[in-house]
Amino acid sequence: MTAGQARRSGPGRPRDPEADTAILRAAVELLMERGIDQCGIERIAKRAGVTKVTVYRRWRTKEELLAQAIETVRDEMPAVVVELGPDTPLPDAIELLLPRWGEILANGRFRALSAHLLAAGPSHPALLRAYRTHHVLPRRERARATMRRAQADGYLDPTADVDLLIDMMEGAVIHQLLLNPEPPGPAETTRYLRALLVQVGFVLRPAP
Amino acid sequence: MTAGQARRSGPGRPRDPEADTAILRAAVELLMERGIDQCGIERIAKRAGVTKVTVYRRWRTKEELLAQAIETVRDEMPAVVVELGPDTPLPDAIELLLPRWGEILANGRFRALSAHLLAAGPSHPALLRAYRTHHVLPRRERARATMRRAQADGYLDPTADVDLLIDMMEGAVIHQLLLNPEPPGPAETTRYLRALLVQVGFVLRPAP
Repeated sequence: MTAGQARRSGPGRPRDPEADTAILRAAVELLMERGIDQCGIERIAKRAGVTKVTVYRRWRTKEELLAQAIETVRDEMPAVVVELGPDTPLPDAIELLLPRWGEILANGRFRALSAHLLAAGPSHPALLRAYRTHHVLPRRERARATMRRAQADGYLDPTADVDLLIDMMEGAVIHQLLLNPEPPGPAETTRYLRALLVQVGFVLRPAP
Repeated sequence: MTAGQARRSGPGRPRDPEADTAILRAAVELLMERGIDQCGIERIAKRAGVTKVTVYRRWRTKEELLAQAIETVRDEMPAVVVELGPDTPLPDAIELLLPRWGEILANGRFRALSAHLLAAGPSHPALLRAYRTHHVLPRRERARATMRRAQADGYLDPTADVDLLIDMMEGAVIHQLLLNPEPPGPAETTRYLRALLVQVGFVLRPAP
């Protein structure tokens, strides 16, 4: 979660970061234990030890709250934060990022939440829409920019359809994460991601 | 479902195809209405109008029954059956198959069931395992054979990693199906599939 997102969601009251954290954590726990149908604002508020009004001050709908709660699990992992200068060549940036991506994707909590979210899609389009608007589309926009830069710098075939490549890579990852009864650990996930980038046509540093 | 699979699952009693159909249909309906946790053998038997013993004669576990039930939705669609001679050039076969794949993937029932199955993965590994063993892996084996033939016949880059390509294509489809709040209809899905095949490197006939 970012401060900007929390502010955008609520009607501008002064925020209580501790309450926010407790609410988001309660939402994540309930979503993992009970699934989305059992995960109403009232229950979330009760578990977080706050009133329903406190929740509604920050999030207009259950869907916006859950979308942000799912995202906090990704943010929990400090490994995802990497400082990269704007001039870092893409292959170097990828070497730094690959093991961190591997760690996140192999994380059991992240996997369980992703499954709940995907499952909710057809029956709870509002949750899917909130998650897409606030998290998927901004991330996709950044990925698109990175890939266009990679094409300009000669690290990726300039004729490739960038949007399709993103679908294929995200899709392969979902496939690995959710359709594998024995999901691989961080190291194997990292190797898989590397193979995927090579297969879609990225020029990488030789594998370590 | 194939007769072979049904026979393999049960202990060899004479089968009653009408009861089988009723049981599979009841399982699909319950799974879509209630989700996997509310989808026990007793409930399925009751809705199908048979005894629990009748169900257990054919399927050892709830997971094997549900895995097969999910598959029947795919089989319901007559469009998937295409007669292809062994000498049909791959690009011709793909032209025949593409609109049929588009129709299946755009089907709302198929989409809803796929979501339930993916969601069940982390919490119900037995269902995922049954579905993989009886349906995903045999289909993947056929896809692999087709792609190797395509490589041999010059319709696909011979250095491509076939398993990764399958993950990417299946993954992109899952992505389109389940992460899209406004999923595309059959015609658009067919165009998407065509673009996907071209992007991974298949040589196709020019788009009609």
